[in-house]
Amino acid sequence: MTRKKSEGGITFPQGFSANGLFSGVKKNGKPDLALILSGTECVAAGIFTTNQIKAPAVKISQRRVRSAGIRAIIINSGNANACNGEQGEKDALLIGEKVSHHLGCDPRRILLASTGVIGRPLNMEAILASIPKLVDEASPLRHGACAQAIMTTDTRSKSAQAEGMVGGKLVRVGGIAKGVGMIHPQMATLLVFLTTDARVDREGLRNALLQASDRTFNAMSVDGDTSTNDTAIILASGLAGNSLVTKNSPDFPEFSSLVQSVCGSLRDQLIRDAEGVTKVIRIKISGARSRGEARKVAQSIARSMLVKAAFFGEDVNWGRIMVAIGNSGVRVFEDRIDIFMGEVGLVHKGTGLGMLQEEKALEVMKGKEITLRVMLGVGSMEAEYWTTDLSVGYVRINAGYKGRT
Amino acid sequence: MTRKKSEGGITFPQGFSANGLFSGVKKNGKPDLALILSGTECVAAGIFTTNQIKAPAVKISQRRVRSAGIRAIIINSGNANACNGEQGEKDALLIGEKVSHHLGCDPRRILLASTGVIGRPLNMEAILASIPKLVDEASPLRHGACAQAIMTTDTRSKSAQAEGMVGGKLVRVGGIAKGVGMIHPQMATLLVFLTTDARVDREGLRNALLQASDRTFNAMSVDGDTSTNDTAIILASGLAGNSLVTKNSPDFPEFSSLVQSVCGSLRDQLIRDAEGVTKVIRIKISGARSRGEARKVAQSIARSMLVKAAFFGEDVNWGRIMVAIGNSGVRVFEDRIDIFMGEVGLVHKGTGLGMLQEEKALEVMKGKEITLRVMLGVGSMEAEYWTTDLSVGYVRINAGYKGRT
Repeated sequence: MTRKKSEGGITFPQGFSANGLFSGVKKNGKPDLALILSGTECVAAGIFTTNQIKAPAVKISQRRVRSAGIRAIIINSGNANACNGEQGEKDALLIGEKVSHHLGCDPRRILLASTGVIGRPLNMEAILASIPKLVDEASPLRHGACAQAIMTTDTRSKSAQAEGMVGGKLVRVGGIAKGVGMIHPQMATLLVFLTTDARVDREGLRNALLQASDRTFNAMSVDGDTSTNDTAIILASGLAGNSLVTKNSPDFPEFSSLVQSVCGSLRDQLIRDAEGVTKVIRIKISGARSRGEARKVAQSIARSMLVKAAFFGEDVNWGRIMVAIGNSGVRVFEDRIDIFMGEVGLVHKGTGLGMLQEEKALEVMKGKEITLRVMLGVGSMEAEYWTTDLSVGYVRINAGYKGRT
Repeated sequence: MTRKKSEGGITFPQGFSANGLFSGVKKNGKPDLALILSGTECVAAGIFTTNQIKAPAVKISQRRVRSAGIRAIIINSGNANACNGEQGEKDALLIGEKVSHHLGCDPRRILLASTGVIGRPLNMEAILASIPKLVDEASPLRHGACAQAIMTTDTRSKSAQAEGMVGGKLVRVGGIAKGVGMIHPQMATLLVFLTTDARVDREGLRNALLQASDRTFNAMSVDGDTSTNDTAIILASGLAGNSLVTKNSPDFPEFSSLVQSVCGSLRDQLIRDAEGVTKVIRIKISGARSRGEARKVAQSIARSMLVKAAFFGEDVNWGRIMVAIGNSGVRVFEDRIDIFMGEVGLVHKGTGLGMLQEEKALEVMKGKEITLRVMLGVGSMEAEYWTTDLSVGYVRINAGYKGRT
């Protein structure tokens, strides 16, 4: 059984400490440098942005995550260190070296992540000067400071943890995340860092991360953009002492469900804090030929600016949902489509059910969390997907982002 | 030589009359029923929405446009008559029959189009009662009323005309259009009606329409959505008496450029009147491997909510443009990309050119019409594409659309 604990976050599993502080990257004086540290060498797995333009931190972590023995992840916020040419590459390497030097380990044991504005040189002086303190004062109690130091336009830090029995031993998983725009599937999405004390091989760890991401971070859309820096990394210390979990071992499902539980909680926190969000919409597609097709229809609805604006305005404009279904690229039949807002039927076999139903649906749309159900009537597969409304606040935030960090 | 005239619009070519009036579909009393009438049987061609959910008017016109002998197009605004089941199909057919009856021709000679809210029954009584007057009072002088009666959230009617010599005879082309959201490529986009007095066969007419659309209506994006009703139709009366234009005849380029001139003017009027638009952005991609790849990169930029919001906020956030390029699905190399805002270089070989250039670019972004240039450095092909900013006004309009017609 998975138990959710109320705190602990990234240092909830055995063997991890963390820290976060203000180094001088952000103009507003908020924490901008974070560290996740393991006392022992960890197995690691990661998922990274599919954007072809990748920040040096992403390229370096992508290479290093494949080898065992990871000791730490250092993250700066306020500056993505992307599109900074060779200088950006050098700077990222130097940050890793400084951390490894202070820890007394090989630089290849350090992973990196960055988030923030693109195309500005990093304030290296500030970062390098802060690394000794960052490392020296890292502790299991500093998980909250770590979660805060990775934030950009987030209004709240995101942290989650879960524990459960895996092969007769108590295993813990913890995690933190940041991201409020640029949340979209087909890539690692946003910044997510997970830790576990499970003994697990790299393949098992990677599979657990992929499965959890597929149903959480990769099943939500805020604005459909994918940044240069999106990263999800999981470190496993092995200190729980369970028998080794592998992709095919009988304990894998238990371990995987712990990871999924933490990712699910982070997903919920992320989507509720999306930029300018006033409503969270859970899209449930059923009656599809395949899960992939169900997902495509859900994505088409989730990305439609007209659908998202209608949710913001509490406008029961189901025609826009039909339009998005018809635009999905999936073969559908108008006269088989049913649409429900919450439990209220709006469309049956492609035709509207009338004003009375629309009035009832309006009540559902006034809520903060709305479930939209679409039955395609061409099969038996389903998919779930999360999106947000498109608000005046979203535009305001994104029209002036650069000036505000 | 193409000459643009200042007025005439849809009745500028010989043989056409038009009309527009308020029938009772719109709640606000504005014109909602339009007619384009030819005294003689016309050759016709059309492009229709690629959305799988199509309004009955689209399906009917799609069938009928293939046969010669078209006499009229009847258009209602304020109600899309989409997703209305069998009743919607019957209603659309009945409108066509009523027009044909009054004209004394076969119903298959009548094309239809509708635009407005989806899923509401048409006010058939009002429409049918207005058709006699609509037909009887149609005249070459009523082109303006016709252009107005097809509007929905448009703030201005759109009309254009051009004339030029084709095979030694003066040939005229006219057109009207409506559409301020849901403007996106890969489909007919919006409502566009064109007339010409050229003698041209169906294949030639169709090719001229496709070529013009490809470079105008299909090269712009407001919100990436495609409606159930998008339609572009061209009618040719043949009264100019030129020798028949065919796809391969030497006169084809002259004729085609006349059509393109009218479509280009309509495109400009449409994009300037896009919902909530404060800026029009012309995206020029060069140095691509193929025109298709250049277009894909342009579309990715044009559809990025973050890029569009940055233009609204006059935020020189070129990182978002890099992100959109990297997300386009086209293989690019970060260190070959150059970006110019107007004539101001912002990025050279993937790296920012500094604050001074950004300050100059900011001046360019303060304009109402901005050219964004991206050089990919991997080939010699180019493409142009138009988009708008994402404004607070866009969200406001689309959050409450249904209540406003």
